[in-house]
Amino acid sequence: MTDTFSLDVPLQGNFDDVIGTVTEALKAEGFGVLTRIDVDTVLKIKIDVDYRPYTILGACNPVLAHKALIARTDIGLMLPCNVTVEKSGEDECLVRFIDPAKMMSFATLGDNADLVAIGAEAAERIGRAAASLS
Amino acid sequence: MTDTFSLDVPLQGNFDDVIGTVTEALKAEGFGVLTRIDVDTVLKIKIDVDYRPYTILGACNPVLAHKALIARTDIGLMLPCNVTVEKSGEDECLVRFIDPAKMMSFATLGDNADLVAIGAEAAERIGRAAASLS
Repeated sequence: MTDTFSLDVPLQGNFDDVIGTVTEALKAEGFGVLTRIDVDTVLKIKIDVDYRPYTILGACNPVLAHKALIARTDIGLMLPCNVTVEKSGEDECLVRFIDPAKMMSFATLGDNADLVAIGAEAAERIGRAAASLS
Repeated sequence: MTDTFSLDVPLQGNFDDVIGTVTEALKAEGFGVLTRIDVDTVLKIKIDVDYRPYTILGACNPVLAHKALIARTDIGLMLPCNVTVEKSGEDECLVRFIDPAKMMSFATLGDNADLVAIGAEAAERIGRAAASLS
């Protein structure tokens, strides 16, 4: 699909269990979850809007992040790699993993061969994490 | 500059003070800082690498985030808006704000007129936050 920039995996299970499963799958590929935003909670507290459970996990592989920062210092604006978990039905979630290789098509990132290689490795790892879920 | 996708502001002051100043500037435009990654600390702890102080702040304007999610559910992969603070010298930092309008040139985001409008409003606000620092 040319319309997406993510690997999407539907997963059976309750929301919290799916977040745990995704976190473990990322860890197996060297990505630690450094940040978590429970979007529905933020929307409720800040602007009193009801939204379905939707969490953004920020995953970082420190070896690749370090290489990326050496390749281009402002790459921190694109870090960490986001993964979203969204409740899509009763006992069913949709997990979306950003595709780091596609991210390299943004602006002039793709002009940097080192970054492209790092993005490709990150994409391989994210791809394996996504594949391990299904 | 076609090479960047950020608004960059050099700021005098020590690292922690600059982070506080940036946080206040974002707040004045409706962006709360929801996440913080101290990259240098992560690199030291995880892979024993020394890196200069470099922090990624994740800023979110909940009204705009909600509109963006309605426009395109997978936009969570692009949230929050990142701002990096990097120690660039003795008592000097470089602050980079992601440009949300430029983000809309990524993949097919720009095909969505609602998202483009939301990106433009976010960019206006981020631009004012950046301008308020200098």
